[in-house]
Order: sequence, then structure tokens, then C-alpha cells
Amino acid sequence: MSDSDTRAMLAVAVAEARAGLASGGIPIGAALYGADGTLLGRGHNRRVQDGDPSVHAETAAFRAAGRQRSYKGTTMVTTLSPCWYCSGLVRQFGISRVVIGEAETFHGGHDWLAEHGVEIVVVDDPECVAMMRAFIADRPELWHEDIGED
Amino acid sequence: MSDSDTRAMLAVAVAEARAGLASGGIPIGAALYGADGTLLGRGHNRRVQDGDPSVHAETAAFRAAGRQRSYKGTTMVTTLSPCWYCSGLVRQFGISRVVIGEAETFHGGHDWLAEHGVEIVVVDDPECVAMMRAFIADRPELWHEDIGED
Repeated sequence: MSDSDTRAMLAVAVAEARAGLASGGIPIGAALYGADGTLLGRGHNRRVQDGDPSVHAETAAFRAAGRQRSYKGTTMVTTLSPCWYCSGLVRQFGISRVVIGEAETFHGGHDWLAEHGVEIVVVDDPECVAMMRAFIADRPELWHEDIGED
Repeated sequence: MSDSDTRAMLAVAVAEARAGLASGGIPIGAALYGADGTLLGRGHNRRVQDGDPSVHAETAAFRAAGRQRSYKGTTMVTTLSPCWYCSGLVRQFGISRVVIGEAETFHGGHDWLAEHGVEIVVVDDPECVAMMRAFIADRPELWHEDIGED
């Protein structure tokens, strides 16, 4: 995968994160791409918008992609390091690659995924970091709720 | 937690699994209970019914419970050993206990959860085993799709 492909995919996840923020939600976005580079699904965290704690960005993108017989060769791109819930999704369904905007404001399960054969690309994107940093400073209680921290 | 409490909670998950099977779906059910024993949410796998691969039994019960500030002291009861996706959910949100109908037809991430401090109770319920065994024999391709096996 070329650097420009990675950037183009991450841009879709960032657009989702911005849309989530604009609608009063948590600014994390994701998209799932097929082995051939086709966009299968995209989405953002909707805890606030839908009152639904099960909709993280990655699960939203996974859901939007609908039923798939195999995830071999697919890429999940997400603006933030995937939490254990979303890392478990990646492992269970055999998603081949995870492109991560940043792992600085939150470090989820991506090392574990790498140990289990998932290709991990951490972009270290300054916009992703800035968006989460501002959000966490503004709404710490909401952020802690979203990751199950007391 | 007494054995009769465990049995009563498992009965709710089994009722969900049966409802899922009766509506043409995958017979796995779950329920989430609060620290005080209150039923917070219940549900079943709805891959077939909703065309939604993100709705496993445990995520359905978690969603039905709505937003919660903390999962400390909660119990997830499920008819089947939780897959990595659902195990990740339990770990991320700090669900304290998982009651599992059976882990014979499928062995998910419950050993990993135990290593990370989650209390695990495997009931070895013959009805749960029989229901999954019959379903897997009848619809092997659907079962493999649900757990991401090629």
C-alpha cells in the first residue's frame, strides 16, 4: 500500500471524525476497505447521537459494510488506536490491516493485533492528535465514559 | 452469586437464543445485569434478521442497556463463550463477570478475560450445547461467516 493510498483512506476516517464532532459527538472516525481498495463502509462514534454505546467508529464502519463472507485482505482505517472492543473485532473477523491516525492520546490494542499477525500502520497524524486532544480537554467525562474508565 | 441466580440469568440468555433461532437467526443470546442484579439489557445475534454483522448477542445486550457510566460489578451472561470481539467489549468496559452457557462448541476469549481479572463461570449447560450443535450442523456456512472463518 502506497503512502498516498494510506493518506487517502485516512482522509475518509478524518472526515467521519469531523462529522461526528459537528453533530455533538465524539470525534473518532473509521472506514473499512476491501482487498481491492474499494470502500466497503465508513462511520463514526455515535454514543451521543444515538445514545448507543456499542457504536464506536470501527464498529460503525464494520456495520455499514454489511455482511461479508471474508475479511481477508481488508483494511480498517481509524483516526485513533482501536480500543479492546474494536481490536477484538479486527482479530475475530480476520481484518488484515489497521491504519491508525494516532496512538498518542489513547493506546488501545494495536500491539496485541500486531502480535497476532495484523499489519499495523501508525500514521502519527497531527490533525488527529489535535482533534482528540481538544475533545478530551473539553469533555473528559464523556471520553472516559466511552472507554469505560471510572 | 448463588447457583440459582446464575441459572436464572442464564435462562434469560437461553430465551434470547431461542427467539433468535425462531426468527431465522443464529441461536446465541445474552443479557447484561447490574451490580445489584437488575436486568440492564438483553438481546440475541441479529446478523440474519438485520443483515448486521456487528450485532452479536453480547453487543446486542450491551446496546440494549444504553449508556452506563460504569460497568463495575456488572455481569454479562451469554449462551456461548464470547468471541474476541465480545471479549474485547467485556475487557474495554470493565464488565466484572461473564457467565457462559457453554464453551464446548466454540472456545472464544474467556481464558484471556480470566487472565485480566474478569470472573468467568462456565455452566456447561446441555441445552446450550445441543442448540449450537444442531445449528452448526444445519448451517455451517452461516456459523463460519458469523465468526469470520473462511
